[in-house]
Amino acid sequence: MSIVVVGSVAYDSVETPFGKVEDALGGSATYFSISASFFTPVRLVACVGKDFRGEDRFLLESRNVDLEGLEYMDGETFRWKGDYNKDLNEANTLETHLNVFANFQPKLPGKYRESDFVFLGNIDPTLQRQVLSQVKAPRLVACDTMNFWIEGQFNSLMETLKQVDILIINDAETRQLARESNLLKAARKVLGWGPSTLVVKRGEYGVFKFRLGKKGELLSFGLPAFPVEGVMDPTGAGDTFAGGFMGYLAGSGKTDETTLRQAIVFGSVMASFNVEKFSLGRLKELTYPEITRRFEEFKQLTDFEVNLEQ
Amino acid sequence: MSIVVVGSVAYDSVETPFGKVEDALGGSATYFSISASFFTPVRLVACVGKDFRGEDRFLLESRNVDLEGLEYMDGETFRWKGDYNKDLNEANTLETHLNVFANFQPKLPGKYRESDFVFLGNIDPTLQRQVLSQVKAPRLVACDTMNFWIEGQFNSLMETLKQVDILIINDAETRQLARESNLLKAARKVLGWGPSTLVVKRGEYGVFKFRLGKKGELLSFGLPAFPVEGVMDPTGAGDTFAGGFMGYLAGSGKTDETTLRQAIVFGSVMASFNVEKFSLGRLKELTYPEITRRFEEFKQLTDFEVNLEQ
Repeated sequence: MSIVVVGSVAYDSVETPFGKVEDALGGSATYFSISASFFTPVRLVACVGKDFRGEDRFLLESRNVDLEGLEYMDGETFRWKGDYNKDLNEANTLETHLNVFANFQPKLPGKYRESDFVFLGNIDPTLQRQVLSQVKAPRLVACDTMNFWIEGQFNSLMETLKQVDILIINDAETRQLARESNLLKAARKVLGWGPSTLVVKRGEYGVFKFRLGKKGELLSFGLPAFPVEGVMDPTGAGDTFAGGFMGYLAGSGKTDETTLRQAIVFGSVMASFNVEKFSLGRLKELTYPEITRRFEEFKQLTDFEVNLEQ
Repeated sequence: MSIVVVGSVAYDSVETPFGKVEDALGGSATYFSISASFFTPVRLVACVGKDFRGEDRFLLESRNVDLEGLEYMDGETFRWKGDYNKDLNEANTLETHLNVFANFQPKLPGKYRESDFVFLGNIDPTLQRQVLSQVKAPRLVACDTMNFWIEGQFNSLMETLKQVDILIINDAETRQLARESNLLKAARKVLGWGPSTLVVKRGEYGVFKFRLGKKGELLSFGLPAFPVEGVMDPTGAGDTFAGGFMGYLAGSGKTDETTLRQAIVFGSVMASFNVEKFSLGRLKELTYPEITRRFEEFKQLTDFEVNLEQ
């Protein structure tokens, strides 16, 4: 089924202990789209400046990402500059230039409005609702957010959450949003605000998924991250995860527990590939058989027998 | 099968955001023994002072822990004082008084020397070898260590590692020992030094197990920690993990991959119970059916279908 994503398309300058890139293609909607495109057709809503390079447009098109919703505006494309310390766990933002993104008013092309799955990337929660209101009959809506909106737009974010099925955020954001340091207590709180599923990304420590059972009990699913020997650049890993997760759901057209769990694994698989090279280097060359092979390796990584002989 | 453990028996004074205890029973060998005792008979090697309380001896005996190897020495029992910050992730040591432990020369009672499984708790690596040399024909030897010995007794520790089958240490210790920040690269290095299995404890983020395949490839098994809503006190969680892990192996008498994986899960289950109350409060009242129930819940937590319908 079709999926529409709104988020940023950016040029990133990134330095890690293993190298650096300047003005490399990035942005939440870019990572999400390329990742999701392995599973389903993607419709992108974002804006770029007149400096957006033809080769980057070509990359997205070659992955069958629909760019009718990519608006060219006067000015420069959004730019982010950051680096990472030795353990690669946390990005340190050095510069953010919103540029054309500062005046972005997302408008969905006609056919986008028929989309079944919606992913509201990490933008102003008011804009997230503006996008959502343009989709006629979404079957499943997921969104991301960050500390900036939790701190500055809490009430607007709460309005968005009421209309969302799945919230996909990281560990620290979950605790901050719920003002609760215990992850399970935080999850319970967030699940009372609208989303029926909460996905908590924990970077190199993996991922948890929470929902409430019929008696209000918290149902958890958790996995470690797929361990990777040659981590080069974690930029975009979270969005790549979301792309694999939502892309698989949209591709299968199902949202039952079995499929949600598989989607979590596919998201983790995609993120584990993404960190192996700078920018979109690894996703660009990735093949679907590599993805399914790592999915199977994930089972090997985490599987154990329940039958006890004792 | 029988298991012998050497380590500390201590009185801990601990403060967390959820309360505090003073001079509560603790120590690596204590947590290990009580945890392992749910799966197999345990033989304890440790020392205490004349101040060691009868009720604490009674607790160990009531769990069928053999105390013939518990030496009463002149002086006071080892004492540790520490606290934790809000996220409970790292202990902050306020005071350490080795007391009788400073002069401990472990001697194994005759019957202990016939033990099949050996766990060398976190003590001076020279003492670890001294204990091991007294066991006639151990089938499986595991050990723990810490930054103090990695920094101060590196060569002696390397000697111990040559004689060890399974090294059980935490994330930071693994990276420190191997002088390598990537966990997989660090694991590969450590597995070249003697142990055929490396178990890496990651606290609230779970656990990884590594070994080398026939072609020298790294084989990984990883799980998240069992999520617990009411974490009160993480003291002893690592030793409780090791006790459940080794206890289950000794109890089943097997060390194949299937059993090792189940042992990792039992270790994780025991650790998840331990943090629910201060000191040994939770392990004291724990029952075996509670353990197997949480083992099954662990499967529910991490299970996913490999068959893809797409």
